[in-house]
Amino acid sequence: MSSQPGSLAPLFDPQVIAIIGASDNVLKFGGRPIRFMKEAGYAGTIYPINPRGGMIQGLPAYKDIRDVPEVVDMCVVTVPAPMVVEAVRNCATAGVRSVVIFSSGFAEVSEEGAQWQAELDAIAQSSGMRMVGPNCMGMLNAASFAVGTFASSFERGWPKPGNISVISQSGAVGGHIMVLSRERGLGIRNWITTGNEVDVDVADCIAFCADDPGTTVIAAYIEGTRKPERLMQAFTAARANGKAVVMMKVGSSEVGAVAASSHTASLAGADAIYDAMFRQYGVCRVYSMDEMLDVASAASAGQFPDRNRLGIVTISGGIGVLTSDIAALHDLEVPELPAKAQKALKQLMPLAAVRNPVDTTAQMLNDMPVFEGSLRTMLTDGDCDAILIFLSTVGLSERMIGQITEVLERVRRDFPDDLMILSMVCRQPDREYLESLKYLVIEDPNRAIRAIAALVGFGRGFVRVDSDAPPSLPAAAFAPPNRALSEVEAAEILARAGLPMAPGRLASSADDAAQAAMEVGYPVVLKIVSADIQHKSDIGGVKLNLQSVDAVRAGYQAIMAAVGQHAKDAVIDGVLVAPMISGGVETIIGVHRDPVFGPVVLFGLGGIFVEVLKDVTFRVAPFGLDEAHRMIDEVRGRALLDGVRGQPAADVDALALGLCQLSVYAAAHADVIESIDINPFLVKAKGEGAIAVDALILTKTE
Amino acid sequence: MSSQPGSLAPLFDPQVIAIIGASDNVLKFGGRPIRFMKEAGYAGTIYPINPRGGMIQGLPAYKDIRDVPEVVDMCVVTVPAPMVVEAVRNCATAGVRSVVIFSSGFAEVSEEGAQWQAELDAIAQSSGMRMVGPNCMGMLNAASFAVGTFASSFERGWPKPGNISVISQSGAVGGHIMVLSRERGLGIRNWITTGNEVDVDVADCIAFCADDPGTTVIAAYIEGTRKPERLMQAFTAARANGKAVVMMKVGSSEVGAVAASSHTASLAGADAIYDAMFRQYGVCRVYSMDEMLDVASAASAGQFPDRNRLGIVTISGGIGVLTSDIAALHDLEVPELPAKAQKALKQLMPLAAVRNPVDTTAQMLNDMPVFEGSLRTMLTDGDCDAILIFLSTVGLSERMIGQITEVLERVRRDFPDDLMILSMVCRQPDREYLESLKYLVIEDPNRAIRAIAALVGFGRGFVRVDSDAPPSLPAAAFAPPNRALSEVEAAEILARAGLPMAPGRLASSADDAAQAAMEVGYPVVLKIVSADIQHKSDIGGVKLNLQSVDAVRAGYQAIMAAVGQHAKDAVIDGVLVAPMISGGVETIIGVHRDPVFGPVVLFGLGGIFVEVLKDVTFRVAPFGLDEAHRMIDEVRGRALLDGVRGQPAADVDALALGLCQLSVYAAAHADVIESIDINPFLVKAKGEGAIAVDALILTKTE
Repeated sequence: MSSQPGSLAPLFDPQVIAIIGASDNVLKFGGRPIRFMKEAGYAGTIYPINPRGGMIQGLPAYKDIRDVPEVVDMCVVTVPAPMVVEAVRNCATAGVRSVVIFSSGFAEVSEEGAQWQAELDAIAQSSGMRMVGPNCMGMLNAASFAVGTFASSFERGWPKPGNISVISQSGAVGGHIMVLSRERGLGIRNWITTGNEVDVDVADCIAFCADDPGTTVIAAYIEGTRKPERLMQAFTAARANGKAVVMMKVGSSEVGAVAASSHTASLAGADAIYDAMFRQYGVCRVYSMDEMLDVASAASAGQFPDRNRLGIVTISGGIGVLTSDIAALHDLEVPELPAKAQKALKQLMPLAAVRNPVDTTAQMLNDMPVFEGSLRTMLTDGDCDAILIFLSTVGLSERMIGQITEVLERVRRDFPDDLMILSMVCRQPDREYLESLKYLVIEDPNRAIRAIAALVGFGRGFVRVDSDAPPSLPAAAFAPPNRALSEVEAAEILARAGLPMAPGRLASSADDAAQAAMEVGYPVVLKIVSADIQHKSDIGGVKLNLQSVDAVRAGYQAIMAAVGQHAKDAVIDGVLVAPMISGGVETIIGVHRDPVFGPVVLFGLGGIFVEVLKDVTFRVAPFGLDEAHRMIDEVRGRALLDGVRGQPAADVDALALGLCQLSVYAAAHADVIESIDINPFLVKAKGEGAIAVDALILTKTE
Repeated sequence: MSSQPGSLAPLFDPQVIAIIGASDNVLKFGGRPIRFMKEAGYAGTIYPINPRGGMIQGLPAYKDIRDVPEVVDMCVVTVPAPMVVEAVRNCATAGVRSVVIFSSGFAEVSEEGAQWQAELDAIAQSSGMRMVGPNCMGMLNAASFAVGTFASSFERGWPKPGNISVISQSGAVGGHIMVLSRERGLGIRNWITTGNEVDVDVADCIAFCADDPGTTVIAAYIEGTRKPERLMQAFTAARANGKAVVMMKVGSSEVGAVAASSHTASLAGADAIYDAMFRQYGVCRVYSMDEMLDVASAASAGQFPDRNRLGIVTISGGIGVLTSDIAALHDLEVPELPAKAQKALKQLMPLAAVRNPVDTTAQMLNDMPVFEGSLRTMLTDGDCDAILIFLSTVGLSERMIGQITEVLERVRRDFPDDLMILSMVCRQPDREYLESLKYLVIEDPNRAIRAIAALVGFGRGFVRVDSDAPPSLPAAAFAPPNRALSEVEAAEILARAGLPMAPGRLASSADDAAQAAMEVGYPVVLKIVSADIQHKSDIGGVKLNLQSVDAVRAGYQAIMAAVGQHAKDAVIDGVLVAPMISGGVETIIGVHRDPVFGPVVLFGLGGIFVEVLKDVTFRVAPFGLDEAHRMIDEVRGRALLDGVRGQPAADVDALALGLCQLSVYAAAHADVIESIDINPFLVKAKGEGAIAVDALILTKTE
């Protein structure tokens, strides 16, 4: 029996909470959530469940969850692993809408535990009751202070309510992020850790938060996913709703991947594919806790420019140079300011450098009207999308911070929506006040730049929503038969799927080959076609650059003789006659099936770019033209397509079209295709298209 | 008249200090240093200098520096720019050993100021008195609290005395670093900012600190240097003394102004040369303030492993994965632990992952003997060079931090020299106490890893001191004549300098060419040699792959005919006859003259590696074989030399030898050589050497 999974709303915002294993001992897992909620002022109803009944922490306890007189939104299960299945089954019977299972001792430790976990899965499937954990640290709603967690770090204080939702597969990492957020004064909406993910996983939680009006920023940690489509849907929803998603995904290194697979049971998949997928969906991938919190904090102010012009106002010329360097690394422009702005700044500060970065020298701080005037000039006439203000450590001076804050208050009043970032060391209360005025305050200027770059990335992601549907599959396209396919069949299949394949046909005699050569046009290539012959050139099965009828006839004979000698048992389909194609930029395009994401399209430049430099990039299929162009732009050898050594620029549009046509076909027949390898895919000069010279399709049966 | 510059000791550790422009007003530049020293307890003598005489801040003032009855080690000059020259001249007359000039208004603002600055320079030159500034923020000795600065940030507290010396060209950046250091509790020895650097520059200060017994770590900020040799000498001294140098050099995004007269030169941005030079001298280059302080702090504990095996103990499996990923990025190994260690850890913690990273889960914290046992096992049997201990935010728990500290105290007692890094959030006093036990405490695990990598970099730099002298110049080598040189002359010069040049000689007739071909061996290449003909192939001046006497004769005639037609006014040296060389890996090696560092050697792989990917690397000449190997290892296409597509591995030793021979020659004749371009330099299979096919030398006259 299977039931539709219920909404996650009762889990994220429960009004009625029960705790199975409730305890009077506030240090025990079954005691902590009750204590936390009472301390924090949760306004909903709490039902302690304990077979002994009586009163627990001043609340009447029920002996059984099934005795509770109303529908429970969330039931926290704190009993030891061997008792969990029964408790959860009772919850399902009682119509509880969601359960959070703290207990560890399941699939992560033993066969017996895995068995229990499977039973939990079955209960979730059949009841539709949502289930978090087991082996998780639970959840917190920082708006209502519904607390379904035992994390002891909450003993030392609550996070400030706000609009950032934190979602972590790992309890320890989730707890770590939470404490750092609290220490920095970040505003939190939801916090949830998903543990063994028997039912609810990180993707589900991102999807919920994407539609949660109280969440504007989602910061999530994963080691892997078992529901890639769900994850991508969640990212799509978040982007459509203008919500910034910041992801940390670990396991990018070999040792890391090994450690990850031992840590959770989840299938890691290739890290490069995750990385590509994050780019594809406008997700900001981060690699450190600091970076995650910087970006989440910056995004929580809700300002997302879609251009990248950065204005820098600095009291240190050296930091002006440093920030310009770092901006360049993050693809932010530090443009020369318009003449009008430069003139006005020069009038205010005759000794300042006003080109951008604007080096005011420390003098600016001796004259607050000059500080204010500089900012107003930058905002009015600077034509910048973000302004970074470096004030060094002056924020630590009580005298200075007051004056600076007054100026910033006035400026914000007149420029309510401009993105301004302060790189300044100051005390926490001053920082929090400035952040309430929507100034981002990030001490280290490099980290400030990185955060600004992330905001631009989000802004650009938001404006490209829905602009880029994949092309449709040509009507003539058909599924590849699920068997070994010759290159002639592969070429036919891909041509029908919309790829520009070199013409060519199979010949069965020397005369037939001569006829075919006339059809495809001289010069031609002859190649033996046989699934039984791997290294065709080595045995003399390939003849290149044949210029005449005689050469074609002779070539055919020579190939057949060579095959007769070296591969006499091979089943021969015939000899492929194809035009000898040269020129153009050699690229490789292909498809492979990722164990997590399914069909993934690969692009790389030919030769040493792939072989030596591993200079390739990926996208999860299917995708549209714009995405294909972004993909092409990612390879290090990109300049080769613009023309080097006197070569003309290549037809990048044709290449992009080939990539997305291939992606659409691969996605449509993901059930059959193991891999597709088009090598080389020659990209001709601009306007002349591209042509696939050789293609291989492997199907799953092989 | 010119005098030897004096020692910097009176500047860095003055016993007698005078202040010209001394003031009773403790907010004025002339008042602050006196107030600072009195507050901080400076034990030396302070002489206020003020034309009004009397008492200043309780000290008897002198009307003129020349009246002071003893030799002044350091005199701080605080008067306005127009009065500085006279004041400084009086200091020189008085035999003052060093002056620090705060005043701005010199070369940085006007012609008049530049003139004054030139006069200061002349005084320094003629007197030998050392001079810091003008336009600087002065200095501090945090051991004696000699204070020659007006920086208002010191009003808010002093840095802790310690062993890190901070040197900054920029006053604002220097002040920023100082405040951050103080806030983090870093131990400071010297702090100095050099401003306009009329005499003392950053290189001088690094050189001093390299020999200062109180300094073990040097953290410096520069925007550029005018004394590159001095800087490199200072780095050499620091490395020889086992001192870690951490440098921030800004300006990486500005393309260096390098003469684009040769292909080689056009590829060299000045910043790339600094970057190479830092690597060459074992200096850790940093790109952010956080990174600078993390590395300096880590280095101040004085532990520098020269291997890179990292052990990770973590209470979060997720962070174990993350740190493994980051370690891989920083070239740290996270090796599987020896079986003995794994077995012991498994006995302690049956549920832990013990391969490395060691994921103890949070359980470890519930059982301090287990925590202690894990650390002892790692230290005794883990065969690691550094151990990273991730404890999340438990340091914020008062109960836990005490228990943890006790364990760490005991462990440190038994393992006094092992490098252990805590990634843990805790309160500042706890952190400072743990740091006094030589545990590095860096909250963010990524930053901890980066710091560990820097320590390994230093350790490796220290052990390679003096191991790598440049080869000697061959006795047959001679200076290039300072005029236009043909490729035949260039080849001869480089052959005598020890480079493996392709044989070849100039022929002056068809018969002579045939004779030459026999000498060099068939097949051959013919090429017109004339300084007046640039694009030799285009006009038919080159014939490739000639296989016979007849072909050589015909080729000679054809070239002369083509030249007669297309370049009839050209002065012809003759026709070069050289063997047709093919095979081997195509590389480019060359020299260009950097405006700062002089002769710089370039290495890159041929073809698209240089043209499309700009995959080149540099070294300041001269250097030895080991350095050449490190240089070769830096290019992205390095794998090509190991053999790809069935090619054999290349003779990297021959390549390295070629690079350092070239470096020695370029350094020996830096006064004449503008650039050398050897392209291609073909590297044959291992054991078969390398050969330069074509060479160009440009001299300065051109």
